[in-house]
Amino acid sequence: MTQKAGRRPGKQDTRSQIVRAAGAVFAEVGYAEASIRGIAQRAGVDPALVHHYFDGKVSLFIEAMGLPGGMREVPAELRENPASGAVIVRAFLRLWDEHASAAQPSPFLSLVQAVSSSPLAAESVREFIAERIRPPEAGQPLSHEWQVRQALIGSQLMGLAFQRYIMGTQPVATADPDQLAAWVGPVIDRYLHEPLEGDG
Amino acid sequence: MTQKAGRRPGKQDTRSQIVRAAGAVFAEVGYAEASIRGIAQRAGVDPALVHHYFDGKVSLFIEAMGLPGGMREVPAELRENPASGAVIVRAFLRLWDEHASAAQPSPFLSLVQAVSSSPLAAESVREFIAERIRPPEAGQPLSHEWQVRQALIGSQLMGLAFQRYIMGTQPVATADPDQLAAWVGPVIDRYLHEPLEGDG
Repeated sequence: MTQKAGRRPGKQDTRSQIVRAAGAVFAEVGYAEASIRGIAQRAGVDPALVHHYFDGKVSLFIEAMGLPGGMREVPAELRENPASGAVIVRAFLRLWDEHASAAQPSPFLSLVQAVSSSPLAAESVREFIAERIRPPEAGQPLSHEWQVRQALIGSQLMGLAFQRYIMGTQPVATADPDQLAAWVGPVIDRYLHEPLEGDG
Repeated sequence: MTQKAGRRPGKQDTRSQIVRAAGAVFAEVGYAEASIRGIAQRAGVDPALVHHYFDGKVSLFIEAMGLPGGMREVPAELRENPASGAVIVRAFLRLWDEHASAAQPSPFLSLVQAVSSSPLAAESVREFIAERIRPPEAGQPLSHEWQVRQALIGSQLMGLAFQRYIMGTQPVATADPDQLAAWVGPVIDRYLHEPLEGDG
């Protein structure tokens, strides 16, 4: 009963084959347009097999991009409004600090390498984040005002992670999350609640 | 009088040979430790030839890392204190917007690709920036307080550039520099002048 030729690949082979196919599809059509069906087709497997290994597009994207597993469920603090800026900063750092002590590369480094590799990869991540972070009025289209607020909050959080995980700039690189939350939280509060200047 | 063997490389060859050697040396020993002599040795040329093509280590680093030429002279607004946050944001964007319209890759993309390629490359850039940006009391060793303030200002500026040049997050990606200065300037002012919370 042994199959000498055309041996079906083992579980791990199939799984990583699907992850590689997903990475290629996300890079080509972006996150929003990618489908489980398309990824299965690219991997040369049945869509049911993709569903067997992954509970959906979110998990596949997280694995293909090397993102922290915590992004499967965006912390409630990052979705709810009003949330305190300090709470948001702590939740954000908890997400990216997750694997910082392990020998594996920091997930933020994986993210930065992915998004700086091609504009389409950056677009994928943008679509993914936009879908995960709900505006305060969930279900409503995002107002211009909230688009601005989210982009500015994103700029401060991404920059904080950039200093901490990529540049290694002290004291941000090794500071306690509570200390960083005390320094940066008020800025997030400002972007959340203060009037936006010069935005006629 | 023609030399058939051991032809001396042309000007462009020598110049790019020096730039490649510089990139290798910066990545190996960091910016602070790198010397013109060491770079010349690596390139197999006389140090005088390095000085012939480049007016110093700063210019060599800028070219090897693909940084904007404007970093040769850090804008006075980024060094002088007190400076308005809005002025600092505009000067920062002018630096990185410089080549944004040309076909060549954005210098911020080059920077991000370089610093995410290895921790030593990131350290080089950190040393380079630290040397270019003077604390308010130039000549004095940087106090802990100013180290914190610079790291936080850096986090906001780097994150803004990350959204604008890498992620392409709207409206930050295409917003007018004056509009971005109005949104982000007050945050820089806060990091410059407000008491630092929770920093006992």
